[in-house]
Amino acid sequence: MQKFDVIIIGAGPGGVAAARLLGRAGKNVALVENREWGGTCLNRGCVPTKLLLGAVAPLGLMENLSRGRIIEGTEKVNFDLLRERVHMFVSGTRKALALELINLGVHLIRGQAQCLGPTTIAVESGDGGARKLESENIIFACGSRTSTYPNLVPDGHVILGSTTILEQEVIPASLIICGGGTIGIELTDFFLHMGTKVTIAEAAPQICPTEDSDIGMQMRLYLERRGVVCMTGVRAVSLAADENGQARLTLANGDVHTAEKGLIASGRMPNTSTLDADAAGIALNRRGFITTDYFLRSSPNSWAIGDVNGKILLAHAAAHQGEYVARTILGQEKGPYVPGPCPSCFHGSQEIMRVGMTEREAVALGGEVYISKVHFASNVMAQAAGNPYGFVKVVWRNDDIVGIAAIGANVSQLTLSAQLLLIGQYQGEKLDTFMVAHPTLDEALVAAIRARRVASKD
Amino acid sequence: MQKFDVIIIGAGPGGVAAARLLGRAGKNVALVENREWGGTCLNRGCVPTKLLLGAVAPLGLMENLSRGRIIEGTEKVNFDLLRERVHMFVSGTRKALALELINLGVHLIRGQAQCLGPTTIAVESGDGGARKLESENIIFACGSRTSTYPNLVPDGHVILGSTTILEQEVIPASLIICGGGTIGIELTDFFLHMGTKVTIAEAAPQICPTEDSDIGMQMRLYLERRGVVCMTGVRAVSLAADENGQARLTLANGDVHTAEKGLIASGRMPNTSTLDADAAGIALNRRGFITTDYFLRSSPNSWAIGDVNGKILLAHAAAHQGEYVARTILGQEKGPYVPGPCPSCFHGSQEIMRVGMTEREAVALGGEVYISKVHFASNVMAQAAGNPYGFVKVVWRNDDIVGIAAIGANVSQLTLSAQLLLIGQYQGEKLDTFMVAHPTLDEALVAAIRARRVASKD
Repeated sequence: MQKFDVIIIGAGPGGVAAARLLGRAGKNVALVENREWGGTCLNRGCVPTKLLLGAVAPLGLMENLSRGRIIEGTEKVNFDLLRERVHMFVSGTRKALALELINLGVHLIRGQAQCLGPTTIAVESGDGGARKLESENIIFACGSRTSTYPNLVPDGHVILGSTTILEQEVIPASLIICGGGTIGIELTDFFLHMGTKVTIAEAAPQICPTEDSDIGMQMRLYLERRGVVCMTGVRAVSLAADENGQARLTLANGDVHTAEKGLIASGRMPNTSTLDADAAGIALNRRGFITTDYFLRSSPNSWAIGDVNGKILLAHAAAHQGEYVARTILGQEKGPYVPGPCPSCFHGSQEIMRVGMTEREAVALGGEVYISKVHFASNVMAQAAGNPYGFVKVVWRNDDIVGIAAIGANVSQLTLSAQLLLIGQYQGEKLDTFMVAHPTLDEALVAAIRARRVASKD
Repeated sequence: MQKFDVIIIGAGPGGVAAARLLGRAGKNVALVENREWGGTCLNRGCVPTKLLLGAVAPLGLMENLSRGRIIEGTEKVNFDLLRERVHMFVSGTRKALALELINLGVHLIRGQAQCLGPTTIAVESGDGGARKLESENIIFACGSRTSTYPNLVPDGHVILGSTTILEQEVIPASLIICGGGTIGIELTDFFLHMGTKVTIAEAAPQICPTEDSDIGMQMRLYLERRGVVCMTGVRAVSLAADENGQARLTLANGDVHTAEKGLIASGRMPNTSTLDADAAGIALNRRGFITTDYFLRSSPNSWAIGDVNGKILLAHAAAHQGEYVARTILGQEKGPYVPGPCPSCFHGSQEIMRVGMTEREAVALGGEVYISKVHFASNVMAQAAGNPYGFVKVVWRNDDIVGIAAIGANVSQLTLSAQLLLIGQYQGEKLDTFMVAHPTLDEALVAAIRARRVASKD
């Protein structure tokens, strides 16, 4: 039995962020991981997809500019070298991360964790061996994986999950994607640039279902212009390989669609089935996520952070929660967890960013809700990128800015600014106190906030 | 004699910003312009150069990614169509601007303004006619033009200024640029992508002389890797067409360089020579700029804003000053003019942004000055763009953030965030209160601020 100040289960962004702070503070920390250091984000999620999208970014720009025939050419992405590059960067970052943690004195332990009691963890390594760890402080940061449903199960060959699709060696000629959320939309953008014919099936009434309908509609128009078939409000009865080795999607209304490959990108489920929640004294909700209180505590001596608590399934939310719990353990934090306005992005040729509430969320909350909006048509940088479609939208509630969203070229770059403008409630005279650089996309962001001020003065 | 509440001389970003606020408030405003509505920024400066840089942006990305052979191809910018597109956008925006101002009730008056007295202006139109305008409130917003020096005078054919170079119909095979500031560097980036061989001659000890030397050095390395000849600390004795119609640069040390064209991009001089400052009761400094007090007043009944007061030669500074003076005239503003931390950018394949002071400026001011810095090598988005060079640099003075600068791919997008982080003094625990979206360039910006905090705790 090895004793530690803190045991962290899962070395994704949440577990690593906690381990870093605790390690720096001199705590004796065990970090347990059954797969790769860095978790889904680094190895199978955010990072590899951004490297893929970065490689096709010039094609997106060329496409926009070639509409005006300003630029013409033939360009080809070398997918073998691109996969190699992604692999190199991810594995290099993984090694650097492990080294950083080791240098901070964190004990890196490979294997599958199982709770034996509230303060005891067994870790089974691949070779059948097991060791026992003990600590008064346990952080569950076990993450999530692609959701499966009856008749919607990746087989790793024809029907893929968001992990296996990144391991493909050949670009499919056609692809059916179940799910029009972030993963589905970002991979659509990549495969479109690689020449794949893409069909999206989304159960919600709109694609980008986490966003407002005007944003979803703008994205749909953009994708349809590029030849994507978008089906919304459809229920997939099954997605499976047919007798010809093709992916066959059957909808509840009887319609059948086929493609070379299928991708299931319709949600995430928590990695809690092998934990033994009862032994740990933690509770799971009916979807399997670990329940926590306002302090992210899952039991008197444990916390759950990141995807596994089901609150916000985003890498940076996990890191933010991990740092909060680490500070709590270090006695630097007493209050409940306050996420603040959470940022989120869809990356690619047409991007979405949002900070804080959607219009729909604000309306559901009640109070006086209204919108101010500025379109990119007159923005110099959007015009220079050949993509002047889209807009910035500010959601107001009782005269406060409660949400800022944007769709258009490169709008992910507005995220931190929008967040700071929201947190600082930059409106009215406060906006007069600083200069907005010209020409920038930022001008549309500030103009969208100012648009309300002018309206209310009239 | 026509009487107005306010006469504004010059319809660039400063004059237009003032006219907009005053017009909206119902003031009777005359806006006098001897060239195009929108001034240098829209017609001959920021806007056309950003459209040119936007058109070659995919080439910059391709170049970065092609080093890893991830992407290959041949692409060609159609310069005729690009010039047409720039012309269309600029003229369309100009018309929309004029219409907007007319709808606000602003009187647009074309012609050259000359002061007859402190409250009287004569405007000569091209056909020899003249009209007299009178107002108790005059705003000088007359802007600036390319500086000329003895033996360094654009001839419009071989030796060009920043205006005439944008009117060229053919891309030169080679170009000598006198001046390694914003205009010189941005045009270097464009012409490099168009296949031009570029030589830069800068009098200061570094290129990007307004920035710190580490930024200048990083830009120089980037340009030299792309084949640019950068000469610094050299004095140009003459740049003129030689007997073969080539541009010939003669340096003080006797060295001679020739190219197909020459560009003078070594500063700006104010448009004040035809104003008649004595009649207006305003004073010019020895370089011809209008002197003002802390309230931007140039006389009891006039103000000078933008380039013509020589304070900050940037479009957004002019607009900011214009709005301040408009609010002063409307009685909404009593205090002196406070520019706040001014943002500035170099746009292109390798960008620079800065908000607030350089390290050099902070050191000159005294106090305890130190630097925290984060390199982009480990940033996912910089890696995805194939350009992980460069860094974010934070300048601290007596524990305050007084400046933030960055050099690298797409760093102009960090400008507004850096400004808000500086204004709000986001450091220490204040940085813990919000999540930084992952993966973004923003992470490097926040990490650079955090780098100091960690260091000081050790």
